[in-house]
Amino acid sequence: MDETSRTRQTAQAYVDRTERRDWQGLSDLLAEDVVYEMPQSRERIRGRAALLQFNQEYPGDWHLQARRVVADGRHAAAWIDARVGDEHQDANVWLELSDDGLITRITDYWPEPYDPPAGREHLVERF
Amino acid sequence: MDETSRTRQTAQAYVDRTERRDWQGLSDLLAEDVVYEMPQSRERIRGRAALLQFNQEYPGDWHLQARRVVADGRHAAAWIDARVGDEHQDANVWLELSDDGLITRITDYWPEPYDPPAGREHLVERF
Repeated sequence: MDETSRTRQTAQAYVDRTERRDWQGLSDLLAEDVVYEMPQSRERIRGRAALLQFNQEYPGDWHLQARRVVADGRHAAAWIDARVGDEHQDANVWLELSDDGLITRITDYWPEPYDPPAGREHLVERF
Repeated sequence: MDETSRTRQTAQAYVDRTERRDWQGLSDLLAEDVVYEMPQSRERIRGRAALLQFNQEYPGDWHLQARRVVADGRHAAAWIDARVGDEHQDANVWLELSDDGLITRITDYWPEPYDPPAGREHLVERF
């Protein structure tokens, strides 16, 4: 399997194993010194153990599904459909892998809904 | 050039030509029936002409730089550093290309800063 295929498989597994609360399986994908960042809140989590705990403690009956995974060498991006009950939010996740195929860096964006600014109604439709 | 390399080059050019206000060059990358969506505001723009006009009319002295481009077959994701004056925001853009290498679909996310929720201070550091 080439590097991109391995990266694509790992990114998909990262979403699937998190969704299944397969903590051992998720741990197997992560480098021990993985760094996880949420730039919107300027939060950073260092290390596999802390990141697993963060996921295990995350409140709510959350569910994740990969809408798209794009892999390129040791980089991947995952477009995720996240749901808690009736609430839905998309996430955008950027992954970096090490030489040996473990995830070393995760950057997570959680874009929130906003009202469209005025002045472009002549160009846009709403959905 | 293989499909992924062509997609990667097109995604990078999409950012660069928009930054340069090279409207003819940007137009050359877009399918005539390109669809541009901003899921956060549920806005959609249909067609190359309207999308070019949207970019041309976009207010402010904005600047775009690709922080990372990930390409995979006919899909790409671009992680963009966007600035207007002193203000900075990251964007996450998902691209789909046609058989002949033109951009047919663009999905744009503009995640905004938020305060970290309480209850995870024991796991996170701030940056």
